[in-house]
Amino acid sequence: MASTSYRPAAISLDSDALRRYLDGPYREVRELTRQLLAQPEHAPVCGLPTAEYRELVMERTRLLAAAGQTGMGFPEKYGGGGDVGASIAAFETLAHGDLSVLVKTGVQFGLWGGAVLHLGTERHHEAYLRRTITAELPGCFAMTEVGHGSDVQALETTATFDSATDEFVINTPSEGAWKHYIGNAACHGRIAAVFAQLHVGDERPGVHAFVVPLRDDDGEPLPGVSIADCGEKLGLNGVDNGMLAFADVRIPRDNLLDRYAQVTETGEYRSEIENPNRRFFTMIGTLIQGRVCVGGAAGTAAKNALTIAVRHGLRRRQFGPPDGDSETLLLDYRTHQRRLMPRLARTYALHFAQEVVAARLHEAFSGGDVPERDQRELETYAAGLKVMTTRHATDTIQECREACGGLGYLAENRFAALKADTDVFTTFEGDNTVLLQLVAKSLLTDYKDQFASLDPPGMVRFVAGQVVETVVEKSLARQLLGALVDVIPASDDERELRDRDYQGELLRWREEHMLASVARRLKAGIDNGFDPWRVFNFCQDHVVHTARAHIERLVFDAFAASVDRCEDGQLREALGQLCDLYALAAIEEDRGWYLEHGRLTTQRSKRITTEVNLLCMDVREQAAALVDAFGIPDAVLVAPIAT
Amino acid sequence: MASTSYRPAAISLDSDALRRYLDGPYREVRELTRQLLAQPEHAPVCGLPTAEYRELVMERTRLLAAAGQTGMGFPEKYGGGGDVGASIAAFETLAHGDLSVLVKTGVQFGLWGGAVLHLGTERHHEAYLRRTITAELPGCFAMTEVGHGSDVQALETTATFDSATDEFVINTPSEGAWKHYIGNAACHGRIAAVFAQLHVGDERPGVHAFVVPLRDDDGEPLPGVSIADCGEKLGLNGVDNGMLAFADVRIPRDNLLDRYAQVTETGEYRSEIENPNRRFFTMIGTLIQGRVCVGGAAGTAAKNALTIAVRHGLRRRQFGPPDGDSETLLLDYRTHQRRLMPRLARTYALHFAQEVVAARLHEAFSGGDVPERDQRELETYAAGLKVMTTRHATDTIQECREACGGLGYLAENRFAALKADTDVFTTFEGDNTVLLQLVAKSLLTDYKDQFASLDPPGMVRFVAGQVVETVVEKSLARQLLGALVDVIPASDDERELRDRDYQGELLRWREEHMLASVARRLKAGIDNGFDPWRVFNFCQDHVVHTARAHIERLVFDAFAASVDRCEDGQLREALGQLCDLYALAAIEEDRGWYLEHGRLTTQRSKRITTEVNLLCMDVREQAAALVDAFGIPDAVLVAPIAT
Repeated sequence: MASTSYRPAAISLDSDALRRYLDGPYREVRELTRQLLAQPEHAPVCGLPTAEYRELVMERTRLLAAAGQTGMGFPEKYGGGGDVGASIAAFETLAHGDLSVLVKTGVQFGLWGGAVLHLGTERHHEAYLRRTITAELPGCFAMTEVGHGSDVQALETTATFDSATDEFVINTPSEGAWKHYIGNAACHGRIAAVFAQLHVGDERPGVHAFVVPLRDDDGEPLPGVSIADCGEKLGLNGVDNGMLAFADVRIPRDNLLDRYAQVTETGEYRSEIENPNRRFFTMIGTLIQGRVCVGGAAGTAAKNALTIAVRHGLRRRQFGPPDGDSETLLLDYRTHQRRLMPRLARTYALHFAQEVVAARLHEAFSGGDVPERDQRELETYAAGLKVMTTRHATDTIQECREACGGLGYLAENRFAALKADTDVFTTFEGDNTVLLQLVAKSLLTDYKDQFASLDPPGMVRFVAGQVVETVVEKSLARQLLGALVDVIPASDDERELRDRDYQGELLRWREEHMLASVARRLKAGIDNGFDPWRVFNFCQDHVVHTARAHIERLVFDAFAASVDRCEDGQLREALGQLCDLYALAAIEEDRGWYLEHGRLTTQRSKRITTEVNLLCMDVREQAAALVDAFGIPDAVLVAPIAT
Repeated sequence: MASTSYRPAAISLDSDALRRYLDGPYREVRELTRQLLAQPEHAPVCGLPTAEYRELVMERTRLLAAAGQTGMGFPEKYGGGGDVGASIAAFETLAHGDLSVLVKTGVQFGLWGGAVLHLGTERHHEAYLRRTITAELPGCFAMTEVGHGSDVQALETTATFDSATDEFVINTPSEGAWKHYIGNAACHGRIAAVFAQLHVGDERPGVHAFVVPLRDDDGEPLPGVSIADCGEKLGLNGVDNGMLAFADVRIPRDNLLDRYAQVTETGEYRSEIENPNRRFFTMIGTLIQGRVCVGGAAGTAAKNALTIAVRHGLRRRQFGPPDGDSETLLLDYRTHQRRLMPRLARTYALHFAQEVVAARLHEAFSGGDVPERDQRELETYAAGLKVMTTRHATDTIQECREACGGLGYLAENRFAALKADTDVFTTFEGDNTVLLQLVAKSLLTDYKDQFASLDPPGMVRFVAGQVVETVVEKSLARQLLGALVDVIPASDDERELRDRDYQGELLRWREEHMLASVARRLKAGIDNGFDPWRVFNFCQDHVVHTARAHIERLVFDAFAASVDRCEDGQLREALGQLCDLYALAAIEEDRGWYLEHGRLTTQRSKRITTEVNLLCMDVREQAAALVDAFGIPDAVLVAPIAT
């Protein structure tokens, strides 16, 4: 068609160079992990009975520990690598392999080990970290309860201080207080970090973490500890999730993980952080690494799926012109490009955003104290990115499965495991819907601060700006204004839509506009005397949309910065196309909102769709190199349709 | 909030009455099937090794056959029930249970039995139907090949007539010609309907179906027949899918299923249908029942998922107002309502559309000859509805799993099986992307016919209408016009959006506008000398969108008609709310398009979002009764969080 003349000259993309660029500062760790995964003893398995699968996964976890693969984030003095960033890179890369193994290592080293490291103090480190890093001491992270998954502050398990014996007494007061879904609990865990309501005399200072031994050396539950098996799950059946209950289980006072709060011998409660809410979120905040790791793993799973589907689409032919010699490649169909190319672009975008959040986390854990606001910003970034990558993984794996037709349904082609094992990523380490509200609340807090800190003239400008915008919208004048501005030479059209500054402006404008308008709605509701809880719930869809807009913009910023700093012209051009596709596809998807708010004219909105189609064609030309650059060895990818 | 004053008085909904309304004309069959499924011998199983699972599924298939459950669609003279509509209703209801059993019955009675019944003639019926209906003769439907799934006309298997012996010789000429994914082939199948290119002398009249025995009485493959196992799949592992190849396998001439084409003793090819393309599609068209059945099963699976998620959302509490006595029910959160209520509404909509297509199929198969145009319309409806329900099932099951959090990930709560087993529904009986194009092509054919049959003045009106619309869009005048029309008393706003005629008008307008515009684009491309194949591919996203718009409108019509003919006032009101929610949520989802084409003003578009939120609140009040009305016995639903 005529429009093909718009297409730029084909780029000849060097997938090795691109792989190095993607690997970034942790290239070596990633290479080593890929080589390790390619060994026969780590080959993906399929169809093992659960009991056998669990043992195999435990064994592989020990193998990885022995290879030094899992201790990178721990201090060197306990046998670790002292490099948080490297540990995240290793975890992300491990996600190319069996995801039960990945989650088992996450439980052992990230959750249990992380709780000891971040919530405990030196005596806990001394006591547990060495044997944790080698996996000799399998541990659990016992937070979630049957009755309370998302609302951790409402947990029911109690830890009552008994000054007579200088012990805490751990109890499960109801059926709903059973610890649920605890990885490592059903078979292997010897010890756990148990989250419980602390009772010290009459004080109820909230949820704290305690080290509680679970099993003796023969693997039998200790007195007062009840353990049940969660049974078969949708996926991740190599991980032994279990339930735990405690009946008057006594542990020494020393077993309180006491970095942020202590109980003295005489039963006095002390904490540097006076506000109980803030104390709770400080403790939880140190566990941020789990969210960053799940996000990274989800991104890796999407890379696996896309590598398989894109390669299949470049081999498989079906139908074709009636008079043609050969059938048409699947990836030459527009609908097929539409299914896979924007998701490939988004996978790249999320990769670079993940690099940003991992680097910030590394910095926060390596340096000294982080200012509270930076800490909250990092938590918000991690929460938001976890939502976006896990949602993206679920969506992309499904689309890729379908794009491979019946072949995608054969277990050997990996989608069975990819789908089942990643499915819970949207739920664990924070349910996505709950996390989106955390993100929004954090934005609203910043917004309030910003509002409060404006000098009076600034505030007038700010409010006036809002009012003008609202009026403009109502009268549709903005749209007409847009229509006038849109009258530009046709030859400039394409340049404009591919202008990254313009894309960034559109994404930022949406975020700011939504935030201002949701703040206005909330304020109006409360000012009118409605219950804040109900007001917030009434605006919840708006709140969640705002959080999404924020994250999409953050991811765009990360991607655009990565394009800018790329020094290789060919790579930069290819990454630039992907970044354009990510941005324009995101805007296209929400074009209803842009049109409603007069920020896009109807003509421009249609042009975005045209441009997304053209970008899909451009990216399709590089598709083989773009998935090769994920660097997944055939022995790890396995799928016959893609190796 | 203030807007709650808009809400109508709560309806007190009688779920039994609603169930009877949903059951429709086949209430008795559905009741019997539900009772049968509730027997212990049909309880869902989980975690069985594949070999055992396959045997269990074969056994359950025989049990169902013995209960008369699976022969309803066959002629009474062979032991069937002679009622196609009843057989579809039974199949739909069976989908509440184990889906491997369902698919096994689909293969045996629908595909193999259906091929013999519809493509064969009396001698084939006499020879095979009795033992097919009792499941004594397990059969296969061997169409798909490794190299050709969607493009059936390009199959490579050959059936060459040998007049010397009065036989056909079946051959698999290449690796790609292996029959793939054939249900019943790996273990149980004794015989197959094999689709192959017929060679008669020099004639190559295309793909025909042949009865080919596969195994002897001991279950050993017959000479020349190679059988391989497809191995583990993502789901449906109780069905023994296998691969088949043939090396000089000889079958009597009588084994050609010869309803539409015959080969005489002297090697003369005869068919009433001269055009080979039309002949092929006539043969394939008789297999339409498979699509209708898969669509129905997908709808049932969505009902299972929603029943579980809605009940969980009405029991599970999490978080709550800081000063409140109790936590808030999940289903009282707006985001939770947004996840589940529009999907519940769509499930109802698809139920009534399924009722329509099943009734039309029943009529077509029960009566005499159906005019070609009606036949194509039925095929288009069946193809389109199959796409929409299977896509809906995949989406809904996923959303429901996530809405149940970690509990949704436990296998006992059914989502594991629901997700895995229904996943391939979007692929089999016609890949959804391919089917959407069939739907669009059929619409374009009608459009051309309609265009051609217009008298000259009519044509002028028609063309003028198109031109005016295009001009109007370009100048944005329509949007301004809409804005003026929108200036109506605020009190009328709600009435208008809930006006079903208005909703229908919006849905029809989109369909017609899209069809006209895609036709114009295709014509322009071809008129400009571009290759039609490339032109079609260039417009493929537009084409597919048009097909979707068509199906959404058809489903709306079916739902609206069901609301209208409901005589019980309470039911009609509840169904009316659901129908409004279905329509407005569909329009909201595509509001970008409506805004782009000036059919919605920005204000009205925002009002639709508000109205969808209000409708979600209304429907939530009825949610318990609305899922109870699906009538799934606890023994069939099983999930502990929902029973």
